[in-house]
Amino acid sequence: MTNPLRDPRDRRLPRIAGPCSMIMFGVTGDLARKKLIPAIYDLANRGLLPPGFALVGFARQDFGNGTFASMIKAAAKAGARTEWSETVWKQLAAGIRFVPGQFDDDAAWKQLAETLAELDRDQGTGGNHAFYLSIPPGLFPTVVSKIKQHGLATSTEGWRRVVIEKPFGHDLASAKELNRLVGDVFERSSVFRIDHYLGKETVQNILALRFANGMFEPVWNSHYVDHVQITMAEDIGIGSRAGYYDGIGAARDIIQNHLLQLMALTAMEEPVSFDAHSLRLEKQKILANASAPADLSKHTARGQYVAGWAGGVEVDGYLDEEGIPEDSRTETFAAMRIDIGTRRWAGVPFYLRTGKRLGRRVTEVAVVFKRAPHLPFRKHDVTELGQNALVMRIQPDEGVTLRFGSKVPGTTMEIRDVNMDFAYGGAFVESSPEAYERLILDVLLGDPPLFPQQEEVELSWKILDPVINHWRRQRTIDTYPAGTWGPRSADEMIARDGRTWRRP
Amino acid sequence: MTNPLRDPRDRRLPRIAGPCSMIMFGVTGDLARKKLIPAIYDLANRGLLPPGFALVGFARQDFGNGTFASMIKAAAKAGARTEWSETVWKQLAAGIRFVPGQFDDDAAWKQLAETLAELDRDQGTGGNHAFYLSIPPGLFPTVVSKIKQHGLATSTEGWRRVVIEKPFGHDLASAKELNRLVGDVFERSSVFRIDHYLGKETVQNILALRFANGMFEPVWNSHYVDHVQITMAEDIGIGSRAGYYDGIGAARDIIQNHLLQLMALTAMEEPVSFDAHSLRLEKQKILANASAPADLSKHTARGQYVAGWAGGVEVDGYLDEEGIPEDSRTETFAAMRIDIGTRRWAGVPFYLRTGKRLGRRVTEVAVVFKRAPHLPFRKHDVTELGQNALVMRIQPDEGVTLRFGSKVPGTTMEIRDVNMDFAYGGAFVESSPEAYERLILDVLLGDPPLFPQQEEVELSWKILDPVINHWRRQRTIDTYPAGTWGPRSADEMIARDGRTWRRP
Repeated sequence: MTNPLRDPRDRRLPRIAGPCSMIMFGVTGDLARKKLIPAIYDLANRGLLPPGFALVGFARQDFGNGTFASMIKAAAKAGARTEWSETVWKQLAAGIRFVPGQFDDDAAWKQLAETLAELDRDQGTGGNHAFYLSIPPGLFPTVVSKIKQHGLATSTEGWRRVVIEKPFGHDLASAKELNRLVGDVFERSSVFRIDHYLGKETVQNILALRFANGMFEPVWNSHYVDHVQITMAEDIGIGSRAGYYDGIGAARDIIQNHLLQLMALTAMEEPVSFDAHSLRLEKQKILANASAPADLSKHTARGQYVAGWAGGVEVDGYLDEEGIPEDSRTETFAAMRIDIGTRRWAGVPFYLRTGKRLGRRVTEVAVVFKRAPHLPFRKHDVTELGQNALVMRIQPDEGVTLRFGSKVPGTTMEIRDVNMDFAYGGAFVESSPEAYERLILDVLLGDPPLFPQQEEVELSWKILDPVINHWRRQRTIDTYPAGTWGPRSADEMIARDGRTWRRP
Repeated sequence: MTNPLRDPRDRRLPRIAGPCSMIMFGVTGDLARKKLIPAIYDLANRGLLPPGFALVGFARQDFGNGTFASMIKAAAKAGARTEWSETVWKQLAAGIRFVPGQFDDDAAWKQLAETLAELDRDQGTGGNHAFYLSIPPGLFPTVVSKIKQHGLATSTEGWRRVVIEKPFGHDLASAKELNRLVGDVFERSSVFRIDHYLGKETVQNILALRFANGMFEPVWNSHYVDHVQITMAEDIGIGSRAGYYDGIGAARDIIQNHLLQLMALTAMEEPVSFDAHSLRLEKQKILANASAPADLSKHTARGQYVAGWAGGVEVDGYLDEEGIPEDSRTETFAAMRIDIGTRRWAGVPFYLRTGKRLGRRVTEVAVVFKRAPHLPFRKHDVTELGQNALVMRIQPDEGVTLRFGSKVPGTTMEIRDVNMDFAYGGAFVESSPEAYERLILDVLLGDPPLFPQQEEVELSWKILDPVINHWRRQRTIDTYPAGTWGPRSADEMIARDGRTWRRP
């Protein structure tokens, strides 16, 4: 019987994972329940997981295999993007196991090792194990050292991999420490750092757009580009993440990983291939040559939301959210200018901004072009014309927008801005896999182009550390009402350069 | 009372014609009834005609002023694009006159001269007269010489202008003869040659797109453009135009004027201004350096439609149409390659094609870009990717389409063509004036940028004459079934260059 979710033209067919088990730490957490488990079910349903696949939960709860399987089933059913199939579920359920225990309990680890050995025998997972650490970074040292201690980090039979979720440290020093810790136990090539933005179709499409086409790359440089704006705006507030978020803030949470990665993909030279090594090389060249300007007080801005209106509802300010200390100076909005010292980008600022409780949820990369000289036009015919912009819409409304000037009907030659649109959703019969689907499959296949490596993480912190240190020395933090587009200082920051933020 | 059709932001407001009369020859013909009269009413309704405006018909019919006015009213009502207003009509009707007579009847011309003098006095037309020759070219010599003979071609009081409709001759020699004839009577600057394509918003938008924007012009040259395809396809057959069309054919009817003008606007350098002189200078530079390749048998194609299906209906072939001689070798389809010998376009062929009874009605200019080298892509990931193309859709569905490659969701890096669209109609609140509205207003204002001058007409014939002479020497003509996209020889012609026609 053919799988209706498998399109015969689908070039992913050769990309089916081999036999393996995935051991999930933090399997009862939000991320696992909402994203990871549904992604695994969807992969199975698309026929991209092998029969010899196992999912092993390790947590202090006292579940049996049956209770755990029911929990997984409920999460998969609730979050799956593909249809529910009992047949697929039964195949998947056959490889589901649970090991109860504290992360520092050697007896539990022995049981885990035995469970994996048994799965290798009975489920045919072939000694291939991926350890997914969906846990707070404070627990990393314990888990990683126990993996080593119990001989699970290496094998002569199969592969061993570890998957880490951000934060990859909170500054350069702690990132180095984390890398040392993990590097002691796993080989470099076995460490998969998840930046789920890199799993998004629209992010990968930045590379397709730039390098598959003949007409964009010629203008993709300082001769024609005036500046670039990279925005990740959230309309939600801090929600239940107070414990994680406070003391971390917007720059560490979003700019260090997602936005600097988007910047690197937008700015990098054409790689010789899309394999992991070539891609990382090009991204590193950008990150190594990128920095905020020396005068940080002029070229960065941060803020904290105060009470306001979001989606027609009155909402609390950050300091009134549950679990936030009343004297917190954690920024919920961060903006900065980054200059990239390469021949292609000399003199072209990249403006990065992110925030919570902004006007609307949107992530986009806008390449804003220099104005034409407009020599043959009468001056008043081009007053309503802005700058051309190619906007890569990462989410939501995935697609590409080209903003350009067109003649106003009826007038001699008055020009006004119009938009040309491409919607990713409307153009393809293929449905976009969720970012985590793609990334989990890549972990199981050992295909690492979409995972930032140690060097990229450390280079990103090198860019960010001076900014965060500068902010730390300030006694106060700017504010902005919830539902607006950030503090006034952010507008002033970009206005100093004679530019304005896009209202996406 | 403000005019609801006048938008206060409308930059055309200063562009209201001064007092004048328009004398129309061929006022009972199809063009006058369907296009010219409705355009004059729409101009009046938009408030762009002065109170002192007169419309004078001259024809052999024995109408009185009243009968003529009723005919004009019926035509205006039937063809107007703006709402009907009795108030506007009454103002317009006050200046409507009819002069009956043959074009060679001196008594009738005297009456015309008297009528115009009387209008100058009573209607305040101020001695400004525009003679609109909507008549077969065989009648031009008579009418033009009579205008001169009766002292109507010049005046010390007001301006005198003459408007000519195509065909501007049928080859270079006859075009020169026509220009000499008209030039004997009117000054160069008083002769307005109508190419109604130039009045179209979408055609003028070619200039706006190219020169108002920062991101198109850098790739608008032989470094990045592979070739250009200019298509004007009609789905209709010869209809009632047999008398005019046979012996003329597609190349003379469409390529000599519309398509070569579109080519010139697409290919020309940026003019220093959009005034008539600067625009013509740039267009002439293109036309003077453009020609079909020496081996015309390889780089041109022509054909005649035979019976087939159009719009689900079985239709006759050209030779079976009423009024067509059974041995006619007139082409209803013409295609040719034109090379432009400028630094910008060296090595970039411009493919022009036009035909009747083709698959669908469409006029477009497609700038097709070179493929990217695709170095980092795996070969099979880009097999379904075509060439990037910027398509300026002249009619119908006026707008711009950008065809480019995007990543197929879910696969590693497979690329497929997608379209980005801009629709002229959806983008502006302003309604597009009909081409004739714009052109008639320009005649009355004496604003000539959109009217090809003598030099352009002659240069176009210089390009076309060798092709037509080559075809005349052939004993046979290729055929194509109605409803298809032309003869096989047209496909073979472009295939020789390793390219294919777009299916628009």
